[in-house]
Amino acid sequence: MPAEFDFVDWILARQRAAGVPLVGDDLATLNAAGEQTFAIGADQLLEGVHFDLATADLFDVGRKAMNRNLSDCAALAALPAAAVVTLALPRGFGIEKAQRLYEGLEAAGAAFDCPIVGGDTGSWSGPLAISVAIIGRMAGVAPVTRAGARPGDGIFVTGPLGGSIIGRHLTFSPRVREARALVARHVITSMIDLSDGLSRDLAHVCQLGNVGARLDAEHIPIHADVARLSASDWTALDHALHDGEDYELLFSSPAATIDGALRIGVITTTHGINIKTDAGVLPLPHRGWQHAL
Amino acid sequence: MPAEFDFVDWILARQRAAGVPLVGDDLATLNAAGEQTFAIGADQLLEGVHFDLATADLFDVGRKAMNRNLSDCAALAALPAAAVVTLALPRGFGIEKAQRLYEGLEAAGAAFDCPIVGGDTGSWSGPLAISVAIIGRMAGVAPVTRAGARPGDGIFVTGPLGGSIIGRHLTFSPRVREARALVARHVITSMIDLSDGLSRDLAHVCQLGNVGARLDAEHIPIHADVARLSASDWTALDHALHDGEDYELLFSSPAATIDGALRIGVITTTHGINIKTDAGVLPLPHRGWQHAL
Repeated sequence: MPAEFDFVDWILARQRAAGVPLVGDDLATLNAAGEQTFAIGADQLLEGVHFDLATADLFDVGRKAMNRNLSDCAALAALPAAAVVTLALPRGFGIEKAQRLYEGLEAAGAAFDCPIVGGDTGSWSGPLAISVAIIGRMAGVAPVTRAGARPGDGIFVTGPLGGSIIGRHLTFSPRVREARALVARHVITSMIDLSDGLSRDLAHVCQLGNVGARLDAEHIPIHADVARLSASDWTALDHALHDGEDYELLFSSPAATIDGALRIGVITTTHGINIKTDAGVLPLPHRGWQHAL
Repeated sequence: MPAEFDFVDWILARQRAAGVPLVGDDLATLNAAGEQTFAIGADQLLEGVHFDLATADLFDVGRKAMNRNLSDCAALAALPAAAVVTLALPRGFGIEKAQRLYEGLEAAGAAFDCPIVGGDTGSWSGPLAISVAIIGRMAGVAPVTRAGARPGDGIFVTGPLGGSIIGRHLTFSPRVREARALVARHVITSMIDLSDGLSRDLAHVCQLGNVGARLDAEHIPIHADVARLSASDWTALDHALHDGEDYELLFSSPAATIDGALRIGVITTTHGINIKTDAGVLPLPHRGWQHAL
């Protein structure tokens, strides 16, 4: 379905026209009578797209479904408050497997005081589909959007990138506490969780902030998993730049250095993303996103 | 999967053990710093279970997916505030069909000031799955749960029942405004929206309230759609009692009469549901729920 991105753009345009706050960001916000701000969003995990039942443990599948939503909370610097879950179970799935899946969802939420408070379960002739919606509380912190990066800001990541496909995409830890610590100590001008890959997610940040970026190849942290990938024509740097589902935080800040994060580049006035390597400063080549399956 | 109900019971027991408010009710509640109460829940619509793409208009499918969640808001007497939607689209579904589906979701929400503020869209090898999560605001009203019915209360419904399978299950109007008007004018001790059928939903109310009920057959309103059903061994009353997806409100109140609702029976101390017909007062026979397909 090549029109899928067009459909998403069409949805975002309608939401923008309707005055929805933070359209296209990780979560939308909802003001509770001028007092407390909530963040709300939803994300689904589909069999054959986001996991393979032939190889994945159902506990990990449930955990991933919840952790992707917790990671969206982290991207706004929100504290998770509650989740609701709908499960479409293949007919004949069996209660033990359904329980293992639910235990994964529940355990991932419990690690961040985010109970599952409701939802719906059905069985059908289709594959396994898990949809999680999450509410986060801003709890005294302004939501950190994708849109605020300013020229001169440093670009930072919270951990090494690439190679999540060999298993980490199922077992990552959402950076909820790291996000709260960051905003408590520093000015963070934009933030996003890395799900589509550094190159694509940084492009979102640049587009929304109407800025560009220059990455420094020698400072981009490459995950040890990259060395364990089967050989291909991609370099280790390619994997760190373009693989998806790292679920580290990518953020911009005027701070020179930040504990617990690595500075990988700088936000520029000039649009587009460039990268500095031994060959000089060149436009970042586009690569197809490797889906984590 | 005969164990599906066991799985749901297992989930509810875990939520109860975790201290989740209103476990097993239409929505759960979430307190915003002691000030405003929110209601949150989620419900899914699955192809081949809740609709048939061979006969249903996608606009109506979208509308039903949203309206089921709005109906859950009505059951608590909550005002809808925002919704998030995940769509799993069959590969090759096409943008025009996806847009028609979304327009139905959006229009149903817009009728109750409930914008779609976020979510996720993906395509896969499975059938169409739509998951909607909703947040409602209590806005100064205490949530009306399923659990508060008291012996002597009258049992009321907001409209005629039965026969929704011939089309009304796709095109019903959620009783959001009716619910707010009810709680503004009367003491309402319990409320539920009729999705599983009067006999089953009343059984939920009786179980949670630790009470019984006596229905009066001659006062149960039968929808005109029942006469349009193909002939079967069910009477018109059977359809009004046991068909699903009416989406009228069923509630209990000490009031003798209530404008806009019909009194169909009384809450009793004696457990079980009885029905008064020309043959006397007899236990309500169990009937399988006819799913609206």
